[in-house]
Amino acid sequence: MSKYSIGIDLGGMSAKAGLVSKGLLTAVKKCATRAEDPASVTAAALCGLVEEIIAETGIPRAETVVGVGSPGTIDSASGTVVRWTNFHWENVPLGKMMEERLGVRVFVTNDANAAALGEAVYGGGKGCTDSVLITLGTGVGGGIIMNGELVEGARSAGGELGHMVIKTGGILCSCGRRGCFECYSSATALIRETRKAMKKHPESAMWSGVKSESEATGLTAFAAARKGDAAAKRVVSSYVKNLGEGVVNVVNILRPETVIIGGGVSNEGENLLEPLRKFVYERIYASKEYAPLSIVKAELGNDAGIYGAAELARRKAGKK
Amino acid sequence: MSKYSIGIDLGGMSAKAGLVSKGLLTAVKKCATRAEDPASVTAAALCGLVEEIIAETGIPRAETVVGVGSPGTIDSASGTVVRWTNFHWENVPLGKMMEERLGVRVFVTNDANAAALGEAVYGGGKGCTDSVLITLGTGVGGGIIMNGELVEGARSAGGELGHMVIKTGGILCSCGRRGCFECYSSATALIRETRKAMKKHPESAMWSGVKSESEATGLTAFAAARKGDAAAKRVVSSYVKNLGEGVVNVVNILRPETVIIGGGVSNEGENLLEPLRKFVYERIYASKEYAPLSIVKAELGNDAGIYGAAELARRKAGKK
Repeated sequence: MSKYSIGIDLGGMSAKAGLVSKGLLTAVKKCATRAEDPASVTAAALCGLVEEIIAETGIPRAETVVGVGSPGTIDSASGTVVRWTNFHWENVPLGKMMEERLGVRVFVTNDANAAALGEAVYGGGKGCTDSVLITLGTGVGGGIIMNGELVEGARSAGGELGHMVIKTGGILCSCGRRGCFECYSSATALIRETRKAMKKHPESAMWSGVKSESEATGLTAFAAARKGDAAAKRVVSSYVKNLGEGVVNVVNILRPETVIIGGGVSNEGENLLEPLRKFVYERIYASKEYAPLSIVKAELGNDAGIYGAAELARRKAGKK
Repeated sequence: MSKYSIGIDLGGMSAKAGLVSKGLLTAVKKCATRAEDPASVTAAALCGLVEEIIAETGIPRAETVVGVGSPGTIDSASGTVVRWTNFHWENVPLGKMMEERLGVRVFVTNDANAAALGEAVYGGGKGCTDSVLITLGTGVGGGIIMNGELVEGARSAGGELGHMVIKTGGILCSCGRRGCFECYSSATALIRETRKAMKKHPESAMWSGVKSESEATGLTAFAAARKGDAAAKRVVSSYVKNLGEGVVNVVNILRPETVIIGGGVSNEGENLLEPLRKFVYERIYASKEYAPLSIVKAELGNDAGIYGAAELARRKAGKK
């Protein structure tokens, strides 16, 4: 039985690892990652983080397991990074490479799924059996936990919540379809609509402190809306409505107890969540009175992936 | 350990029960059901079916469990029919009522979820860990099996696949939203569009054998399209496109290995499935080459609910 579980969040600029024990993250280590490095070098760097943690904490190697949340398409059954475009990785057997070096078992999953499991168990979904994480960043990602288990789908290809069409024939998405949730609810979409509204409304408070609309961020419209700016209010209200349509869809399909909102836009907190809750609660198929539903902000920030990767490793090691 | 599992499919006109043993359905019994009967009478009738099966097959009561798939909103944890509008049922503790009479354990779930589990284990999804059943009938219903388990959501309120908006601002749905999948992909929607096209095209082959457009059914457009009728072809092609958008959404979110299409419209078989597959395979986020995906017709027809209810009872009894 493995008693100690180390989680690693692998990213395009850096990797971060830590020991998750009794719900606490300790001995956090970090290293840089580079797209130009061969996969073996990156794998070795991750193993280095694990070795540092083992050395610092003195946990017995025989009772340790490692989980990695990685970007890209992951086949978690075999621990393979099937494709990570930014790093030009194709079929990198990351789990096996690390196991050979470390002499401990290594499990790999998609970073979004790892974050969802982390939030479900240790963050916004703590105490729930069913939760969904929706991250509003460059794109819209997410992860699903139902019956207490991560729902990854065949070859871990599920959880693509952003690629659900909510407006057939709408904006062209990077996936080739038109009208995806992501085209309306990502930070990218919010910024696009903010800039459009700024062009149209030179009098808007969205211009305060910026010289060109290209300086606008995902926070611009929310900030100006708080000041009562009409154009900004329309941008926010339209954003919340589109986000709400997608959230209601996910709730009707899965009916989690908690929807956890993460990613950059979630930093707006209650400014985002309050109108979102109102929109969602009025429209879900089974009422909130029948099946309680909460909509909360992600709690673990950038550490969600470490928590989740460690949790997944602990669970998978316990099963096999 | 319960060795024998009896499944019951409760409907608004009749109830059907049978013993599911080693994947085979035997000793099928049927009785009428009436909305005007008190719930206790209906529960007693269901118990009667179970008694008949026990008497006929000689299975030991102590080793028998019963599963019921019921219409309406079900709290499967407590075996309660929370609401079944057609029968004016509110908070009927069907499971407990039957347990008291029968002296065997009774588990209750939603009929659509029961059918999804039946198809997943014994029908179109046999051998798969992850499958989704989408039924195209008066509405669009469904059920989700992931990681081999039924995904019911909080208080069994999930699986409302029909109430996923695919066209924001579109046709008004019975649920109060606009543009739900169900408004475009149910048999009802297909018939609506068929009748509209008939009115517009008096020359169409959709008129063959019918005097008024009100006689058109869900099969009318498919039949005329096979004869090469242009207006009918447009109805079918638009129906498949809308159905496809919803199916791609479900696949991107959950990535099952198999999507099982059931309900009246599924009787069109390959006439429906072939163009549907083409639409879906071209649009799903992770390619079919990466994660194989099949789209098949439901195999168990009206027996899916019995199979699934029996399977659920067998599983739940094994756990507790």
